[in-house]
Amino acid sequence: MTKILIIGAGRSSSSLIHYLLKHAASMQWHITVADANIQLAKEKVNGFTHCSTISLDITNNEERFQLISQHALVISMLPAFMHAPVAVDCVNLGRHLFTASYVSAEMKALHADAEKKGVLLMNEVGLDPGIDHASAMKIIHHLQQQGAEIDLFKSFCGGLVSPEFNNNPWGYKFSWNPRNVVLAGQNTAQYLYEGKLKFIPYQRLFLHTEEIEVDGHGKFEAYPNRDSLSYHQPYGLQNCKTLLRGTLRMLGYCKAWHALVKLGLTDDSFVIKNNGRLTYTDLLEAFLPPGNGHVKQRLKKWLGQEYDQVVEQKLDYLELFSNRKIELMEGTPAQFLQVLLEDKWKLMPGDQDMIVMQHIFEYRLRNASHRLSSSLIVKGNDDEHTAMAKTVGLPLAITVKNFLMQKFSLAGVQIPILPEIYLPMLLELEQEGICFHEKEF
Amino acid sequence: MTKILIIGAGRSSSSLIHYLLKHAASMQWHITVADANIQLAKEKVNGFTHCSTISLDITNNEERFQLISQHALVISMLPAFMHAPVAVDCVNLGRHLFTASYVSAEMKALHADAEKKGVLLMNEVGLDPGIDHASAMKIIHHLQQQGAEIDLFKSFCGGLVSPEFNNNPWGYKFSWNPRNVVLAGQNTAQYLYEGKLKFIPYQRLFLHTEEIEVDGHGKFEAYPNRDSLSYHQPYGLQNCKTLLRGTLRMLGYCKAWHALVKLGLTDDSFVIKNNGRLTYTDLLEAFLPPGNGHVKQRLKKWLGQEYDQVVEQKLDYLELFSNRKIELMEGTPAQFLQVLLEDKWKLMPGDQDMIVMQHIFEYRLRNASHRLSSSLIVKGNDDEHTAMAKTVGLPLAITVKNFLMQKFSLAGVQIPILPEIYLPMLLELEQEGICFHEKEF
Repeated sequence: MTKILIIGAGRSSSSLIHYLLKHAASMQWHITVADANIQLAKEKVNGFTHCSTISLDITNNEERFQLISQHALVISMLPAFMHAPVAVDCVNLGRHLFTASYVSAEMKALHADAEKKGVLLMNEVGLDPGIDHASAMKIIHHLQQQGAEIDLFKSFCGGLVSPEFNNNPWGYKFSWNPRNVVLAGQNTAQYLYEGKLKFIPYQRLFLHTEEIEVDGHGKFEAYPNRDSLSYHQPYGLQNCKTLLRGTLRMLGYCKAWHALVKLGLTDDSFVIKNNGRLTYTDLLEAFLPPGNGHVKQRLKKWLGQEYDQVVEQKLDYLELFSNRKIELMEGTPAQFLQVLLEDKWKLMPGDQDMIVMQHIFEYRLRNASHRLSSSLIVKGNDDEHTAMAKTVGLPLAITVKNFLMQKFSLAGVQIPILPEIYLPMLLELEQEGICFHEKEF
Repeated sequence: MTKILIIGAGRSSSSLIHYLLKHAASMQWHITVADANIQLAKEKVNGFTHCSTISLDITNNEERFQLISQHALVISMLPAFMHAPVAVDCVNLGRHLFTASYVSAEMKALHADAEKKGVLLMNEVGLDPGIDHASAMKIIHHLQQQGAEIDLFKSFCGGLVSPEFNNNPWGYKFSWNPRNVVLAGQNTAQYLYEGKLKFIPYQRLFLHTEEIEVDGHGKFEAYPNRDSLSYHQPYGLQNCKTLLRGTLRMLGYCKAWHALVKLGLTDDSFVIKNNGRLTYTDLLEAFLPPGNGHVKQRLKKWLGQEYDQVVEQKLDYLELFSNRKIELMEGTPAQFLQVLLEDKWKLMPGDQDMIVMQHIFEYRLRNASHRLSSSLIVKGNDDEHTAMAKTVGLPLAITVKNFLMQKFSLAGVQIPILPEIYLPMLLELEQEGICFHEKEF
């Protein structure tokens, strides 16, 4: 019997837990689902055997260490900034760890220790990062084996609302952590463009978009996502001149979001005492240069070319120019915005979300230039069984299963870029209806 | 014999140490000067008695705790972010602590504990914050005692180079921690303007300036400094409609600095691998939108109205458009900029720095409106005995002396806003030539 611990039973864990429970009997696993909210954990395992639930205060070092010690393998579905203490325990106890999050500096620092102890710290095995690595690497390895020189690689992904279920001008509803959406992009984006380094500070990020098109699904816009440079070497693309990872949104989203960023509404660095006094218009007023006249007119004038009807429609929808009171007694501007968006961008019962991913390659093979795209669309079943939960959870669950079946053997800090990881993962994802469509264009 | 511990023997500690050593014999003090660099500590006490020096690794908890336990009172001249563990030790050991830094969240959290134990944690007793509090409060209390209603209070301060010793177009040389100058303003500024909250994000801070004039010294420009709102209540200015603290620079500095901020050159959030490859022009190129032509021309076009001859002259002086290589093997953009500025803005032997401070009040008294300014100019002796070291160190040293002479008795987290603190402090500063000049205008 292999004991697996899943920490975190939130919305994006449902597909992961479901998959592992389905295989538990035949694989001889026992699954423990731990969460601060035991009720949440119980709902997720309801009707299954070979499992148990436990209430866990992740900040209690003793409790966390004890629980991890009782398992052979840990899957952390915690917010990214909370993985570090779990990872330290795993290395000390000789337990393997899987996450769907970016490799943090703290995680990276554990590589040598983990490797020495034969402990695997597998990260970035979700959707993005995760499926993007797997599907891109399959193509990159294939092209390189043929002798191709890859000059350009762009990879885009977004978790959106399916158009049939969209009823707001932003074309966006929350299918994952709202806080991450509000704070998205606050680190300077880094990528490579025609052989040159490019750094895009947050204040310009949402003006710095490009359009992509997915057959049958129309156009989307993308802004650069975090540090693309760090994949230059792991992807084996040292000679590639343009390397960019981007985040997708519906057309028009970015220009309107830029207005919020430029105003300062996504600022999470200071706390405003509200005490039920302030309206959203007061908040806008506080960020606008002093002046007379209605806030909307002043905003329009101040933003100049960065303001248009499409922006206005989106800001109006958020009731930013209304006397709507800010609910929180105190909070950062970002928290004030988040509480409003959670109301305006709520995934309603029955709503379906949609994952869009596209890789673009330009390469030279036998003196000919080629352009190749590989696209993925995944739709959710409803607001509970979302495409987001499926595409984050399944690659993780499948990779855990393959690791326990010894389809690959690794130690240290890893991401899913090796054939022995991505080939069986992509194969099984296809069986689950998660298929890429390639096209030369 | 009262034992006093001074932690940190850097440049801004010299006047503080000198003052305390001068009074040590008559006051029956023993002064210990601790620094990671024992040589620095030894130089500072050279020729004095009643003192000793010790090498201290501030991150060694045991060593720090032991040393603090052997003293009755501690003065921390460490960088602000390093005060917290010292303050915790002081509270646990029942030792008083004095700093010239802003009250941090960690410091604030110690208030109740410190108060219960009768421990004084006195902060913001330097120049700004420090002398500004003392001198403003003296006027505020005086006006309020006469029955005045204060409608506007603005307080400005800057540590600049004395014009006779200026030889660069920025009108600036480093008289304190260069890193603080490069990162200045990275939190959103908050103040009150005509009864309304105002928040100025970093990206707009250096465009958001106003001019002030000091008789005989000409005009200066000011940008909003941090959180002015937090002084509303401690200053007793609850009915004041405009409340602003600002930082002073020579005219033209802010517009050019804004260009660096907008580009991203003050970004401290990500590390660039350089390895001796990159020039400052490459760095600019990486931050500029893609395009053809010389970097200077593209920057000019991109900045539009935010670029002019005055900006260009300052950027040229920094050799930003040259093939000058970046010295650091790796670093953040802010670190790359800092290493350049440390060369370009170095206070040379014999150079004199200059402190400029001005308070502006608008108040109503017996149905008449008044405007009052109170201004201070302090010049350094040379690059070692700077006006900065004098104005940071003396208020701290004087206040320590007055506390030990029991001129005031307080516990918990405090700043120098009470008459029993500021009156003797200002009196003694006057004797040292640090005098304010008031003017109705």
